Amino acid sequence: MSHKILIANRGEIAVRIIRAAKELGIETVSVYSKADEDALHVKIADQAICVGEPKSSDSYLNMNHILSAAIATGCDAIHPGYGFLSENAVFVEMVESCGLRFIGPTADTIRLIGDKASAKRIAKEAGVPIIMGSEGILEHLEEALKVAKKIGYPVMIKATNGGGGRGISIAYNEKELVHAYERTSLEAEAAFGDKSLYIEKFIESPKHIEVQIIADKEGNVVHLYERDCSTQRRNQKMIEEAPAPTISDTLRKKLGVAAIKLAKKINYINAGTLEFLVDKNQDYYFIEMNTRIQVEHPITEMITGIDLVKEQINVAYDKPLSFKQRDIKILGHAIECRINAEDPMNGFRPSPGKITNLFIPGGFNVRVDTHVYQGYSVPPYYDSMVAKVIVFEKNRREAIKKMRVTLEQMVVEGIKTNIEYQYLIMHDYTFIKGNYDTGYIAKFNELVEKNKNE
Amino acid sequence: MSHKILIANRGEIAVRIIRAAKELGIETVSVYSKADEDALHVKIADQAICVGEPKSSDSYLNMNHILSAAIATGCDAIHPGYGFLSENAVFVEMVESCGLRFIGPTADTIRLIGDKASAKRIAKEAGVPIIMGSEGILEHLEEALKVAKKIGYPVMIKATNGGGGRGISIAYNEKELVHAYERTSLEAEAAFGDKSLYIEKFIESPKHIEVQIIADKEGNVVHLYERDCSTQRRNQKMIEEAPAPTISDTLRKKLGVAAIKLAKKINYINAGTLEFLVDKNQDYYFIEMNTRIQVEHPITEMITGIDLVKEQINVAYDKPLSFKQRDIKILGHAIECRINAEDPMNGFRPSPGKITNLFIPGGFNVRVDTHVYQGYSVPPYYDSMVAKVIVFEKNRREAIKKMRVTLEQMVVEGIKTNIEYQYLIMHDYTFIKGNYDTGYIAKFNELVEKNKNE
Repeated sequence: MSHKILIANRGEIAVRIIRAAKELGIETVSVYSKADEDALHVKIADQAICVGEPKSSDSYLNMNHILSAAIATGCDAIHPGYGFLSENAVFVEMVESCGLRFIGPTADTIRLIGDKASAKRIAKEAGVPIIMGSEGILEHLEEALKVAKKIGYPVMIKATNGGGGRGISIAYNEKELVHAYERTSLEAEAAFGDKSLYIEKFIESPKHIEVQIIADKEGNVVHLYERDCSTQRRNQKMIEEAPAPTISDTLRKKLGVAAIKLAKKINYINAGTLEFLVDKNQDYYFIEMNTRIQVEHPITEMITGIDLVKEQINVAYDKPLSFKQRDIKILGHAIECRINAEDPMNGFRPSPGKITNLFIPGGFNVRVDTHVYQGYSVPPYYDSMVAKVIVFEKNRREAIKKMRVTLEQMVVEGIKTNIEYQYLIMHDYTFIKGNYDTGYIAKFNELVEKNKNE
Repeated sequence: MSHKILIANRGEIAVRIIRAAKELGIETVSVYSKADEDALHVKIADQAICVGEPKSSDSYLNMNHILSAAIATGCDAIHPGYGFLSENAVFVEMVESCGLRFIGPTADTIRLIGDKASAKRIAKEAGVPIIMGSEGILEHLEEALKVAKKIGYPVMIKATNGGGGRGISIAYNEKELVHAYERTSLEAEAAFGDKSLYIEKFIESPKHIEVQIIADKEGNVVHLYERDCSTQRRNQKMIEEAPAPTISDTLRKKLGVAAIKLAKKINYINAGTLEFLVDKNQDYYFIEMNTRIQVEHPITEMITGIDLVKEQINVAYDKPLSFKQRDIKILGHAIECRINAEDPMNGFRPSPGKITNLFIPGGFNVRVDTHVYQGYSVPPYYDSMVAKVIVFEKNRREAIKKMRVTLEQMVVEGIKTNIEYQYLIMHDYTFIKGNYDTGYIAKFNELVEKNKNE
């Protein structure tokens, strides 16, 4: 039986999925907005259909248009990529009610684990550590002290309506908590008109570590080890690496076990990622699950040799995974740098426009996933990522060197990019040591800003 | 101690070597002819020096100019790449007498094994099968019959001065040999004014199989399995794959043993390739050795995970190989298609000129080694190869599919290329079956020509 997949996405991930489908002998249909008429995913698919105006809500998020396109072209499945409709349970239900396959988990699973509170509850039930805290709002200081004693210091007192770093205090012991409670309560009342507080375990200098899993419909659930995605700017990942440089083998095993336990608990099907915070003591806390392919999936592919998107497609077509847990070995080290059309010297302001000169470097164990070409205009409507530069080497030290050499060769002219910024990070001592945390980039940027003004 | 390497080459191999050196933290110097001022290898090296006029003999083959460039820039080693001066023993001696390292074997080794007759003698001494035949010119028919009986039928009678397919006969038995001897002798006298003949074992439908070896200065000699390079047009390889599709595991082992035996016999150092013919009965015959890196080395890198050029450089700097024979496993299947600036519909006539539009495909396990970019002009003076498209997959079937999908996406405009031709081969039954021999492309071209005229 011949298959045909509609890719409900754009950019590099659409290109990535089209390639995988074609290699599996499956026909592909791209959708595009009016801003994407010249996009690569439109050129390389077997068919392409315009689904609306440039604004995402009018095209890539327009469920009716996308479903109509799938039905009109005779597709039997939809791959959502990441972002857009990829974690939209309603869309999944619509896809299935049209008799098509959704390449991802079920709508119920997305609802269950997509909701943070529900995900936390499931993790707790499954015995996977989560960030403990008060159940809801604190009644009084005594309760705060009691909870803190139970979950252990340091703790974070947060104003329920706080935000932007305000209405937050850290307490390392009882005495500090007494003061913090009072102060934060007053602050909160003054700033937000609401003095209600809650308390949570404070994770010092956390690393953002995520575990890739994939499961088929026959009950096989495997993990493909972890990625360190702590290099973030305002919660946007910039650099990812696998395996995580400071994770012990013991913790690596624990994370894998926890990820599989959680996935099995909810009968998860297809690819997914479990995000954890890991503190200095190598204690780990589950924070949330992403029920789709991730931007940074290639580093996992590089270190395991497994094509995650092909497996995703096969699983959706009722095939078993092509490998078992015991087949998955960490073969080396991979790093991904996201190259964005943005100006790091100007507050990372987006920099859409025409690429007038382009050189994409290559070579042994260098992979650049991109949808841009010379002469292409990066539209202002979507994500500013123009390429993912991925390198693989036998160890981390070599991988960093390869990334430097690769970034050095890369040429993108006509728009501003963060290539040089990424190149700087590849030479920064903290990054090289590997023990950077989620606050690293903010600190690095302060330094860059300071140097700029001197 | 810091090192600095001059790369005595151009094109994709110069780019390849520069990347490897830089990743090792070694400075690089490119040389270029006046036709290559805008070449990529000039742009990405730390330094670049013009060594003469476009004609190779005035620049890339001009030993004095290249050595002067190396000395002037303070290099301590020269990597010759392939072609040009890579197998020139005199050049190696000059390099060494200037106190520089040659990244390759010694001059003596090149002389010893570079000469076909000498190589054959060494192989015979080492007990490696060669194509047996008469020692020099045959005196009379009786000698021919005697030799044929010894080496076994079928045999090939060749005019000493023959060429271009003339003055050659095949005999499958004694009776045929009697006739062939007389006929070929007369033919040869008429055509070349010389009736002298010699006789050789005739290898029916041979496959061109080569074994990659590398050796360090501490006596470690390893092989990295074989490549099938039978897809040739007029002795120019077009497609290579590793491992060879029709080679049995028994033969694979034998070829590895033979290659190491030969390399050890001549105390070979650095990377080298032993070429064999393999017949339908899986009998193998050593034909010659290439004492340099090969164009098709990436497919071996893909199936073993080993960076051959880095190992070459390390060996030249007296380091041991980073791996042992037991570490080398065949991890999957790799195919390389050479993309040339040529017109397959016009007798493969070279097609130099400006590349006005370019898209180099990428993705998981796709590697394109190239030196071209959009706006680059392919000069008419050198090899017409513009890119090597290399794919890796878990098995041959998947690799062929990946190559199809990759070639489909590739865009090179402004010049003619053989992309579509390679795409056709990837769909040809004989290639897919894998039992093509060195005569395959000639037959395929006849078919193409025939269809063209219909």
